[in-house]
Amino acid sequence: MEEEVFEIRDAWIKIREYIAAGDGTGIVAWMDTLPSGEIGRILSRLSEDELTTVMQLIGPEEGAELLNQIPEAQAVDILEDLPSEAAAAIVDELDSDEQADLLGELDKDDAEAILSELDPEDASDIRRLIEYDWSTAGGVMVTEYVYFRETATTSQVLERLRANKEVYADYEVQYIYIVSRDGLLKGVLKLRDLLLSRDQQRVGDLMRTDILKVKTDAPLSELREIFEEYNYIGIPVVDESDKLVGVVRRAAVEEAVGEMATEDFLKMSGLNGEEELRTMPVFLRSRRRLSWLAVSMALNVVSASVIAVYEHILQDVIVLAMVLPIIANMSGASGNQAIAVSLRELTLGLIKPFEVMRVLLQEVWVGLINGLILGLVLGLILGFWKGNPYLGLVVGAAMLFNSILSVCVGGAIPMLLKWVKLDPALASGPLLTTVSDACGFFMTLAFASLMLPHIL
Amino acid sequence: MEEEVFEIRDAWIKIREYIAAGDGTGIVAWMDTLPSGEIGRILSRLSEDELTTVMQLIGPEEGAELLNQIPEAQAVDILEDLPSEAAAAIVDELDSDEQADLLGELDKDDAEAILSELDPEDASDIRRLIEYDWSTAGGVMVTEYVYFRETATTSQVLERLRANKEVYADYEVQYIYIVSRDGLLKGVLKLRDLLLSRDQQRVGDLMRTDILKVKTDAPLSELREIFEEYNYIGIPVVDESDKLVGVVRRAAVEEAVGEMATEDFLKMSGLNGEEELRTMPVFLRSRRRLSWLAVSMALNVVSASVIAVYEHILQDVIVLAMVLPIIANMSGASGNQAIAVSLRELTLGLIKPFEVMRVLLQEVWVGLINGLILGLVLGLILGFWKGNPYLGLVVGAAMLFNSILSVCVGGAIPMLLKWVKLDPALASGPLLTTVSDACGFFMTLAFASLMLPHIL
Repeated sequence: MEEEVFEIRDAWIKIREYIAAGDGTGIVAWMDTLPSGEIGRILSRLSEDELTTVMQLIGPEEGAELLNQIPEAQAVDILEDLPSEAAAAIVDELDSDEQADLLGELDKDDAEAILSELDPEDASDIRRLIEYDWSTAGGVMVTEYVYFRETATTSQVLERLRANKEVYADYEVQYIYIVSRDGLLKGVLKLRDLLLSRDQQRVGDLMRTDILKVKTDAPLSELREIFEEYNYIGIPVVDESDKLVGVVRRAAVEEAVGEMATEDFLKMSGLNGEEELRTMPVFLRSRRRLSWLAVSMALNVVSASVIAVYEHILQDVIVLAMVLPIIANMSGASGNQAIAVSLRELTLGLIKPFEVMRVLLQEVWVGLINGLILGLVLGLILGFWKGNPYLGLVVGAAMLFNSILSVCVGGAIPMLLKWVKLDPALASGPLLTTVSDACGFFMTLAFASLMLPHIL
Repeated sequence: MEEEVFEIRDAWIKIREYIAAGDGTGIVAWMDTLPSGEIGRILSRLSEDELTTVMQLIGPEEGAELLNQIPEAQAVDILEDLPSEAAAAIVDELDSDEQADLLGELDKDDAEAILSELDPEDASDIRRLIEYDWSTAGGVMVTEYVYFRETATTSQVLERLRANKEVYADYEVQYIYIVSRDGLLKGVLKLRDLLLSRDQQRVGDLMRTDILKVKTDAPLSELREIFEEYNYIGIPVVDESDKLVGVVRRAAVEEAVGEMATEDFLKMSGLNGEEELRTMPVFLRSRRRLSWLAVSMALNVVSASVIAVYEHILQDVIVLAMVLPIIANMSGASGNQAIAVSLRELTLGLIKPFEVMRVLLQEVWVGLINGLILGLVLGLILGFWKGNPYLGLVVGAAMLFNSILSVCVGGAIPMLLKWVKLDPALASGPLLTTVSDACGFFMTLAFASLMLPHIL
């Protein structure tokens, strides 16, 4: 471990030396010696100024490589800080979907400044791509693909592929798309079929016509299902008139789905789905986290106010003050398990939002069994400790009923939220905690007030 | 929505009719009309017996297709229930990595029964694959790939590809691997290069020799980094003696990484990382969830016992019973945000476990700012409500200090756990909750006892 600490420190000193010396080729040569994971880690620690300087020293091609290795939020900051010509030169080296992703995140003015430096045709392509929702086929597709007219022959295709070897080297050529004179998608020619064909065949005769294609507004979930079912590397994207406008690559869909999962994870952890890096300014990080904590605070005050109502019971049976957080926390934990199962079954498509009753029936039994066991344990502990079986009964019953309630609520909440088109990952946790706290406090104190003569 | 409810019900009735009629081809024809996502949803609702019958009716090839569309836990159950010849026929149709995955999950005896029905050579391949850890290159690789000796000519290669069109159609042939007489990996021939080559060239002259390869024990994280950096569809896997033993496909790595992320999500939600489907028996589901709840219960009793120690203070200032859960919950929420950021930065490789001090320095400020704000709000509410500024001071101070503590603990716990090789996703949450509850209770009650004369 010690060694590693020194390595990172050395790497920093080194890169700062290169920066001070203005030695761009030195930086590139040195980075080539590092494992790829390390580069991102070292770069993400540099200040924005230092990173901007590095970008200008190493030139656009290497700069584009490097942008791919750091988190998106940081990449956006760098593009904003660079002079627009320098930023445009780097953007020019990126794939079209990455261009659209990054420019879409920039301020409107910054994005326009960069776009105006680019080749007008490229710029209009990017503008069009930015317009698409990032969670649709249009938003994740690339516009780099190889296409031919139906009337071309295999020899013509091979000739052009050979002549344009360099250009196509950057594309992921596995399929060649065949279009009509008007650009309508007619078929796909697999590289393998081209390889096994004879010369001078018309590609229109050789192509496969039973092809899968998607419209620009196809949602990510559909794309993911297609790529799960079929082993394709890319699918053609067409507009409303069936004109070929792009290609969605498997990797791009998987990346986008991964981003959605990350977002869900961040939301469930109370981070509002926004990416936080510890290199961001403290106040920005505080503010982002606080926006969610404020909601949580309000909900907590609501549920705790139940305690205020029953203050007199607590005063009489003070041991309940110790029991309240246990019951609330344990029910909350049980309910969270149910939330996790529902969220996952929703994601896998195994349940639909309107099947709430089915889920409730499946959860109520688990809640009953686990509530019985937890209630028995807690009831016995309290009963023996205070030598009062009635106290044990109150606590055990509250634990049992609140477990059942929380497990059912936890199973149902994500589905109901999804049904009314709210985000289950963001809101399920706080809602459940509020319900299981408030009801846990209420049941414990209400049961106690019923049994008051016996537990005093 | 109503329509959809009926659709699913119709689908069930339909599939049960086919089962009753023993009509396998009917099932296949009907399933072909369904969107692919639906098939999994409908099938996952059938009982194990029904599914087993369906499998036997539709034959091994369709059965293998179907196994790919249902969750792994269910697929394993089906293979266990089927007669071993029937199960073996289905397994024979799967890709080698899926064979190893499923058989590896079966009971030893069931797996052996199926293996003994398979072609001995295939069986020994599968046995070898099962031995590899699923989170290494050996565990995710397939053994279906196309290879040639260095001395073959391009015409020979093309001829054999044409002759074996059907066999290779199932492979994902994008690269042809070139090996020496002893099976040592010498190079890779890209399909594109083969396409653009002239006849009668030696593949040994045409192949690329600066190739990327991994050892069988290369971990998933390394594979993911490679696929992130390079646009390859597959990477060759070699054993210690550099002999080619398999190919890792991009899709397999992405699937395995996705499984790890899902596991982390389940662990954080208190499900022990085990996949739960609501179609599983209630007692199994209860038991799995309870194993984690039991730990949580013990930790909760520990933290709540702090309250027992200070019972006399609570008795005197009963409003604190309402404040305790708020402070504990709010600090817990703040700490969870820090856990999420640490987990994500660890996954992205932006921080290493030993950099705890660095993270603490970055968290303490966020904790201070948000603790100040939350403490101020809570303190003001209590102070004005009870008309006692000292009470507000006690509550605000407890909120402030416990926020700072929880945020620091939350940021550090995942790293410390990872450092000592424990699983951060599983243990971070419960540990944090225990610390933030216990310390929250302690600080509030201890501060109150110091100020007791003023807040009575």
